[in-house]
Amino acid sequence: MTKFDEATQAIRVDETTYDVCLDPGYSIGGPLNGGYLMAVILRAVVDSSPHEHPVTTSAQFLRAPVPGPARVRLEQIKTGRTATMTRATLVQGDGQGEKAFIETLVTTATLTDATPDWTDAPAAAMPPVEECVKLPDPKPESNMTFNAQIDMAFDPPTIGWLTGSPTGRPEGRAYFRMAEPQDPDPYILALAVDALPPVVFSAGARGWAPTVDLTWHLRALPAPGLLTLLGSGRMISDGWFDEEVEVWDSAGRLVAQSRQLARVGRG
Amino acid sequence: MTKFDEATQAIRVDETTYDVCLDPGYSIGGPLNGGYLMAVILRAVVDSSPHEHPVTTSAQFLRAPVPGPARVRLEQIKTGRTATMTRATLVQGDGQGEKAFIETLVTTATLTDATPDWTDAPAAAMPPVEECVKLPDPKPESNMTFNAQIDMAFDPPTIGWLTGSPTGRPEGRAYFRMAEPQDPDPYILALAVDALPPVVFSAGARGWAPTVDLTWHLRALPAPGLLTLLGSGRMISDGWFDEEVEVWDSAGRLVAQSRQLARVGRG
Repeated sequence: MTKFDEATQAIRVDETTYDVCLDPGYSIGGPLNGGYLMAVILRAVVDSSPHEHPVTTSAQFLRAPVPGPARVRLEQIKTGRTATMTRATLVQGDGQGEKAFIETLVTTATLTDATPDWTDAPAAAMPPVEECVKLPDPKPESNMTFNAQIDMAFDPPTIGWLTGSPTGRPEGRAYFRMAEPQDPDPYILALAVDALPPVVFSAGARGWAPTVDLTWHLRALPAPGLLTLLGSGRMISDGWFDEEVEVWDSAGRLVAQSRQLARVGRG
Repeated sequence: MTKFDEATQAIRVDETTYDVCLDPGYSIGGPLNGGYLMAVILRAVVDSSPHEHPVTTSAQFLRAPVPGPARVRLEQIKTGRTATMTRATLVQGDGQGEKAFIETLVTTATLTDATPDWTDAPAAAMPPVEECVKLPDPKPESNMTFNAQIDMAFDPPTIGWLTGSPTGRPEGRAYFRMAEPQDPDPYILALAVDALPPVVFSAGARGWAPTVDLTWHLRALPAPGLLTLLGSGRMISDGWFDEEVEVWDSAGRLVAQSRQLARVGRG
């Protein structure tokens, strides 16, 4: 079992409750990465479902949970031949003090390795991986433990904001894999769709950009190898921005699509 | 009060329940249009919220409700200064027989008329409205009553499938307004994001294409006048397809963004 598999483990208590333990290794300056938290929730949802894959996940982020024990509460809303729909809530606290931190609606189904009937080209072109660059290691006091879990190589202009040269538009592009070698799977895709720095950094914004809603679709099971993350946004307005991420696998297939609506950080 | 306002009215019973009456005038061959059903749900959500606008809505479609009385059940998950998150469920049937038909998670907030800090160009160009074309009137026996509620003028190639000439890619583009004159508002945008024929028709598919998940974001309050709907898809695979719709208002502002994951119809 890899460290990621262990960090996302969900242990069945009964048909509506799973115990989980949120790993401090996925911190981004304090709060835990939203993709990591979705992966934890999806472990419980898929284990409880007669279907194998989380094809759609809509998550609303209410508050930031702390590392340590937590639970996933499940309510199966409908199950049929093709799909099962489940409400899953990540909670922390005991008894009367139990509080919801993330609310999700998840549809599980079973994907096959069918060839797509039609597929568009990737949303953007990537330079070869050897021309891409890594982020500098975060300072230990920044509590960016998440960065050590993943290995990302960025399309250089999209991290120009780091050195004072943002491109002026919301975007981010990178090759992605786990730092500890592991073939990508749907849980790693949950992590991947929320792994880029907020796309608004490239448009000149800064600071913690809290996600309000993140919806992603698993479109195919990823082939082994590097993933490509193509992130963009359509509008920054009134304190809100959208961030879309497409994930392509090493075989050139679109494997995941996400869109989140988030708040622009202050400062 | 317009017919649309009446058809989407939600009457407060108590803080967690609203009575609604589903209008047979929004049928698309039997089932009611999903955007209409979202508009009904959002009336209840917004009425119960301290905030004015439904900025994100994630809806999972479980079953097709029938025209007639129904209820919206609400659970307020969190409320704060900026936003309120609500779970809202459309139900029909009485007592023990009550069943959920649509499950939603909705974030309400209050948008201002701020100028966007940054905005991209529309996803596609539209010909002038006088070069666009309407769909032929549906046969009465088709039970397509929805078509009479709206007034749409299509970018001609994107309805070439009607006359045996699909473009070969998932797309659909049209100008949109209500048949009964009414300025667009967030509820009309809920209708608009699900008003185009399924984009897969343009790629050669046919038949009822049931939506599994539709998530949409209200990005700004629409100006009076015509709306422009730009629909597209990224992949058709394994019986699933995605459909993205951008809605632009007459002032040239992006006012709504949606993505749905749906099943390809058979036949």
